[in-house]
Amino acid sequence: MAFKTIHRHEHNFGWDNSFAPALRVAPGDEVEFECMDASTGQYTRATTPADVPALDFTRVNPVAGPVFVEGAEPGDAVGVEVLDLQESGWGWTASIPGFGLLAEDFPEPAFHISEYDRQSVYFEPGITLPFRPFAGTVGLAPAEPGLHSIVPPRAVGGNVDIRDLTIGARLWLPVQIAGGLLSVGDTHAAQGDGEVCGTAIETAMNVRLRITLRKDAGIKRPQFEMDGSPTRHVDERGYYATTGIGPDLMEAAKDSLRDMIEHIGREYGLEPALAYMLCSVAVDLRISEIVDQPNWVVAAYLPKAIFG
Amino acid sequence: MAFKTIHRHEHNFGWDNSFAPALRVAPGDEVEFECMDASTGQYTRATTPADVPALDFTRVNPVAGPVFVEGAEPGDAVGVEVLDLQESGWGWTASIPGFGLLAEDFPEPAFHISEYDRQSVYFEPGITLPFRPFAGTVGLAPAEPGLHSIVPPRAVGGNVDIRDLTIGARLWLPVQIAGGLLSVGDTHAAQGDGEVCGTAIETAMNVRLRITLRKDAGIKRPQFEMDGSPTRHVDERGYYATTGIGPDLMEAAKDSLRDMIEHIGREYGLEPALAYMLCSVAVDLRISEIVDQPNWVVAAYLPKAIFG
Repeated sequence: MAFKTIHRHEHNFGWDNSFAPALRVAPGDEVEFECMDASTGQYTRATTPADVPALDFTRVNPVAGPVFVEGAEPGDAVGVEVLDLQESGWGWTASIPGFGLLAEDFPEPAFHISEYDRQSVYFEPGITLPFRPFAGTVGLAPAEPGLHSIVPPRAVGGNVDIRDLTIGARLWLPVQIAGGLLSVGDTHAAQGDGEVCGTAIETAMNVRLRITLRKDAGIKRPQFEMDGSPTRHVDERGYYATTGIGPDLMEAAKDSLRDMIEHIGREYGLEPALAYMLCSVAVDLRISEIVDQPNWVVAAYLPKAIFG
Repeated sequence: MAFKTIHRHEHNFGWDNSFAPALRVAPGDEVEFECMDASTGQYTRATTPADVPALDFTRVNPVAGPVFVEGAEPGDAVGVEVLDLQESGWGWTASIPGFGLLAEDFPEPAFHISEYDRQSVYFEPGITLPFRPFAGTVGLAPAEPGLHSIVPPRAVGGNVDIRDLTIGARLWLPVQIAGGLLSVGDTHAAQGDGEVCGTAIETAMNVRLRITLRKDAGIKRPQFEMDGSPTRHVDERGYYATTGIGPDLMEAAKDSLRDMIEHIGREYGLEPALAYMLCSVAVDLRISEIVDQPNWVVAAYLPKAIFG
C-alpha cells in the first residue's frame, strides 16, 4: 500500500481520455488529491455580487488527476473509499445568473461567504450547519474520445454532487477505458440534496481516498455505500417541508423550492436570494411519490436544527 | 374539543366539492377516520397474482369523509395533526400491470402479503421493516366543480403518498372552498419515498387526526412539519445506493430503480418482481443534484437495516 499525492497544479478542466495520467496507483493505494475550489480561485474573500458574472466558465471546477488504476479494464469498477477531507476554513456560495434550479426567478447575481471548521459551517449569525464535507466531482474518463464538459455528470460519474459521499462512504464507478483515469474536485463543506442554487459551500480541500478495484463488477452507473445516516447530523429538531405537485418532476421541484424560499423568508426573515443559497446548502429534495399518474410529488425538507 | 368518527362506509371514490359532508367539526376537534384499504376490500389474503388485473379501478382508494371544517375559507389552510393510526395486522403490496414507475419492465402482475404489528412489518423471512404508518391520501376538495379522479394528488393535497406524514406530523392544506371538505384514506404500514411499484404496505387502519385551521395562511400547496427524522428508524446499518444520471428526472429515477432491483437480486437473492415491491416499501428516491446541466442525478437509497 502506497500513499501518493496529486498536487494542486495537477488538474484539468473537463474529461478527456487522452489526458496523461498524473499518477499510477495499484488497487489499495491511498491518494491525497489537493483540490482547488470550484472557481479555481477566481472567487475570493473580496468577491462582490457584481463580480460574480465575470466568472470565466472555461476555468471552473478543476479536477485533480487523472489517476491511472493498474489493472482496471472496461467492465470493472473503480472503488473510492473516502478517508478524509482537510478543511481550508472558508467557502463561498453564489447564485450565478443563468445557472441554478430557479435561474428564471433569480436573474441577479448573489455571493455569500461562510466560515467553517471541522464541526460547523457558520452560514449567518443564528444559522449553523454541521460540517459534512465531500467531493462533488469524482469520476472516470469516458470512453468517447475528445474533451467533455466538466459540468454534467455521466455514467462514469463526474460532477454527481452526491452529498452523502462524505468521510466513510464507498463509491463505485464503472470503468470505460483501461486504467479508468480517476479525477476528483469540487469540494464542498456542506450541501443539501439537489444543490439547488447551483453551488454549495464551495471550498478548497485536500481529499484523501483509498482506491480499489472490483473486477467484472458489471455496474452501469455510480453506486455507493455508507455506514451512517443521510441526515442524522441535522435531524435533532425535525423538519419543515414544502411540496411541488404536477406531471413534471422538474417543475414540481421548482415549486417546492419556491414555497420553501417563501417559508424561510416568512419564518426567519431571510431575503429571497439568501434563502435560495441556504436551500442549496441545507435543504433536501426528495421524491415522495412518482406513480400516482399524472401528478408526482417532490418535497423540499428544511432541517430546523440549523437555526438558532 | 369533540371526538368524532367517520365510519368505514362513509367514503367516496374521488373528489367532488358537491359531496355532502359526513361530519362538521370545529377547529381543534379530533376525528377518527375508519379507512378501508386501497382496494376497498377487493384484494384479500386469498388473492393470487392472477387475480390482480381484475381490480375494479372505479372502486380503488376510497377516502373517508368529507369533513366540513367550520370557518375554513379560501386562502386559509386546514391543519391536520396525525395523532394515531390503529393497525389491522396485515397488508398487501401489488405490482399492477400498467401502473408503477417500471410498468414497462413488469408487465406481469405480482401480489405479496405482509403481516405486521405496531413494531414491525414482516415482509419476508429475513426482511423486516419498521412499522411507520401514515395515510397516503389526505386532501381537501378542489374548487373546480365535478368529480376528480382519486389517483393524482393536487394543490389541495389528496393522494400525496408522503411517507413522513406519520404519527406526530402536522400537515397544512390550502383551502379552495368553504369548509375545505377533508377526506382521508390509502393507509400504509410502511413505504419508501417514491412508492415506486405503485403500492405500499396497503392496509385498513383507523386514523385519528386533530383538525385545526390557520386563517389567511396563503399557502399554495401542501406543507408539513415533523419533529423526528425521515429515516432514523432504518439508519442503523447504513445504506446502499444506486444512481440514475441524465437530462430527464423521470428516466434517471427509473435507471436508479432498475440498478437497485439488480443489486437486491444479486446481494439478497430476490427475484425482480419481489425486489421491485420491496423497493416500493423500503427504498427512498432522492434528487442528489438538479443543476449540473444538462444531467441530473436521482439516487435510490436502500437501508441495510431491513435485512437479516
